[in-house]
Amino acid sequence: MRIEQRLAERELILPEPMQTPKNLVLPFPWVRLWPPHLPGRAFVSAHGPLLPDGSLPKGILGKVGAEVSETDAYEAARLTGLSVLASLQRALGDLDRVTGWLRVFGMVNAAQGFTNTPGVINGFSDLILDLWGPEHGVHARSAIGVSELPLGLPVEIEAEVAID
Amino acid sequence: MRIEQRLAERELILPEPMQTPKNLVLPFPWVRLWPPHLPGRAFVSAHGPLLPDGSLPKGILGKVGAEVSETDAYEAARLTGLSVLASLQRALGDLDRVTGWLRVFGMVNAAQGFTNTPGVINGFSDLILDLWGPEHGVHARSAIGVSELPLGLPVEIEAEVAID
Amino acid sequence: MRIEQRLAERELILPEPMQTPKNLVLPFPWVRLWPPHLPGRAFVSAHGPLLPDGSLPKGILGKVGAEVSETDAYEAARLTGLSVLASLQRALGDLDRVTGWLRVFGMVNAAQGFTNTPGVINGFSDLILDLWGPEHGVHARSAIGVSELPLGLPVEIEAEVAID
Repeated sequence: MRIEQRLAERELILPEPMQTPKNLVLPFPWVRLWPPHLPGRAFVSAHGPLLPDGSLPKGILGKVGAEVSETDAYEAARLTGLSVLASLQRALGDLDRVTGWLRVFGMVNAAQGFTNTPGVINGFSDLILDLWGPEHGVHARSAIGVSELPLGLPVEIEAEVAID
Repeated sequence: MRIEQRLAERELILPEPMQTPKNLVLPFPWVRLWPPHLPGRAFVSAHGPLLPDGSLPKGILGKVGAEVSETDAYEAARLTGLSVLASLQRALGDLDRVTGWLRVFGMVNAAQGFTNTPGVINGFSDLILDLWGPEHGVHARSAIGVSELPLGLPVEIEAEVAID
Repeated sequence: MRIEQRLAERELILPEPMQTPKNLVLPFPWVRLWPPHLPGRAFVSAHGPLLPDGSLPKGILGKVGAEVSETDAYEAARLTGLSVLASLQRALGDLDRVTGWLRVFGMVNAAQGFTNTPGVINGFSDLILDLWGPEHGVHARSAIGVSELPLGLPVEIEAEVAID
């Protein structure tokens, strides 16, 4: 549980499961493990930022570069990281079982003309690299602007990781 | 051929190969199997909805939330599912060889302000879960709004599945 | 080094590493290999087009269908291919180690109403198929229009390949 220890040292809190709005049905898990036996992969569904109690951070919803500042969007990407780690923790029991970050696909709900999508998704990458270190935490990455995200989330991130 | 049997029980028809518009060159297969020997993966190219004869469903093209209603977009995602299954059937011979749905990446041609992209992509997920059941059919998923899709398709879906 | 030989025969030049703008921090590699031992996969971060010296092709930045013509966007996708090959070459030492192209995810910075995203991404696919041939070069593909890309790039492409 070295990763959990590092989270504690940094006073970072993994959020509770998402409080899904009543009319939203999400018929899929946050993490899909394959194959059933190890070692294998975890496919991580697109996650957004959550507050510690699993609620949406209402102050930072909307288009980045318009309703949401670049600084707040970086923070949203960092919260998205914690949200992904919470799902992986629930699926795996121990975050040390994530032995390699492979692919990170970052989507920014970009206002027209907002192009610093990499600067936003750095909020996620910086967190992962801080916790896993360069050897295990390093990942291929994309950071694009999309036209709409569920619930007006400012950021969503999908990933694939290796597990042992 | 249990999946094919379930399709028949539900009177679902897998469409013919896409009738590609004359000026559109698509130099890639709908399904890429790897490795050549089994077990392995099938990488599924982005598919859109098709009618049984392989033609585009012209009544449901365009932006979801504007030209296309949410209900029609859900149906488009379901048709996209059938379209993906037709390609997998042609590539594998028997849909039972798909032993695990891993990653589903849903793209909605969203009108400005349309955020219920998960509700749309549920048309795909509900079909897969109905046919494969929760153990094999469950998948990591993303459902985002993109600004344009080929041919004005309302929905496109890319996927990765495990094959035996 | 058969692929390198084919590149030379076609007088194609792999660009130098990207000259990253001063204020842009990209805390990730262009290629992530996994597992450390072979055979395995290379996850390729989203790449854009580069000139041979690693600078951005300033004449073809912006929205495809508005500032950038479809023909120039096809060329941008071809340059993106060379850019991806340069990164793979640096990561692997020999491009022959790429034994299978699996997944290509093409993103076009589309102006409103521009839907021929497949025609643009063909600039990438045509290059790969020319160099690797149909058996190894064939890949599952998506080609979508996104609302914004980093630095106003007209095209970005992410990929997954098999390596030996």
